[in-house]
Amino acid sequence: MDNERLQKQMEFCRLIDAEKLIGRQTYLADASRKENDAEHAWHMAVMTLLLSEYSNEEIDVLKTVSMLLIHDLVEIYAGDTYAYDEEAKKTQKERELAAADRLFGVLPKDQEEKLRGLWEEFEAVESAEAKFARTMDNIQPLMLNCASDGRSWEEKQVKLSQILGRNERTKDGSEELWNFAYNHFIRPHVDKGHIKEDVKYQA
Amino acid sequence: MDNERLQKQMEFCRLIDAEKLIGRQTYLADASRKENDAEHAWHMAVMTLLLSEYSNEEIDVLKTVSMLLIHDLVEIYAGDTYAYDEEAKKTQKERELAAADRLFGVLPKDQEEKLRGLWEEFEAVESAEAKFARTMDNIQPLMLNCASDGRSWEEKQVKLSQILGRNERTKDGSEELWNFAYNHFIRPHVDKGHIKEDVKYQA
Repeated sequence: MDNERLQKQMEFCRLIDAEKLIGRQTYLADASRKENDAEHAWHMAVMTLLLSEYSNEEIDVLKTVSMLLIHDLVEIYAGDTYAYDEEAKKTQKERELAAADRLFGVLPKDQEEKLRGLWEEFEAVESAEAKFARTMDNIQPLMLNCASDGRSWEEKQVKLSQILGRNERTKDGSEELWNFAYNHFIRPHVDKGHIKEDVKYQA
Repeated sequence: MDNERLQKQMEFCRLIDAEKLIGRQTYLADASRKENDAEHAWHMAVMTLLLSEYSNEEIDVLKTVSMLLIHDLVEIYAGDTYAYDEEAKKTQKERELAAADRLFGVLPKDQEEKLRGLWEEFEAVESAEAKFARTMDNIQPLMLNCASDGRSWEEKQVKLSQILGRNERTKDGSEELWNFAYNHFIRPHVDKGHIKEDVKYQA
């Protein structure tokens, strides 16, 4: 039994428990509280199992799910960066690279490379899997913001142009899911005044 | 675009958000609070990506991860049943079957069958994937109980015989992981007196 290898793996498994303490800006569907990174990752992984059929391109589901399960781990050391916080976004890349070195470095070399590779692939948004994963990462909070009656949008006084900017590439993973998300999750809250309609858009 | 199909799938994706509100008895590693079902599922899914190499039998990792991601969903309607609550365990099966009908029934027929099949397979603990998934389901809380210095064991005054009883089949998924878990997570807390040593055992 290669105990040293297993000890490193278990040390990593214990460390990543801290992902449950990284808060996000999205309220749960019932608006009782905001979700955390671990819950968010779990939710998108299940969604991928059910919605992969809508990917524009054929995807490897295990690879996509793996990417989604681990893509926010760097936030354990780098913190969550809110999508509309322009100041924090300036140092985000640097903070996340240092966090990746520190966190993935706990694993045996082969698994460090595998997880780091998945994280880098997600960040590059070039492969079919990364594009679909990004679509999930964008659509899941839209779904929850809609379910909680636009509470997060209202509180942050978010404009439609900001949401469209952030979702510029959501359709690259799935045109169908982006169209659905716009028409069912975003549009009703523009009409209700929860999102400021500073631009005209139709999906 | 098969909108009715997608609407059912999205309805299910929104409903399962409630998994984040189902509390478990296990404390997070830092003991700041107890974890919930969604966090638990996420944690085990990542652990499976890293630890599948220790499975006694060859396993399909995507199937195992899928099983772990969805196996607690019935608790949204049936509630969590604590491992050492003998009264609640008497009605557990009945409550969970009704919950499975109600919850998975929201999905399109093919996906209802797929998810229900995965849940039933997990419950039966017969396939290699289900055995490994059960090993994860047992080892993840042992790891966290150890990390939080045995707090949950102490509070519930848990006996070693109860832990061994609950873990009777943990080694069926992975002998190596069971041995590691006993020696690194359980044994030190028997020695510290957090777990009552009412029987003698050696892994």
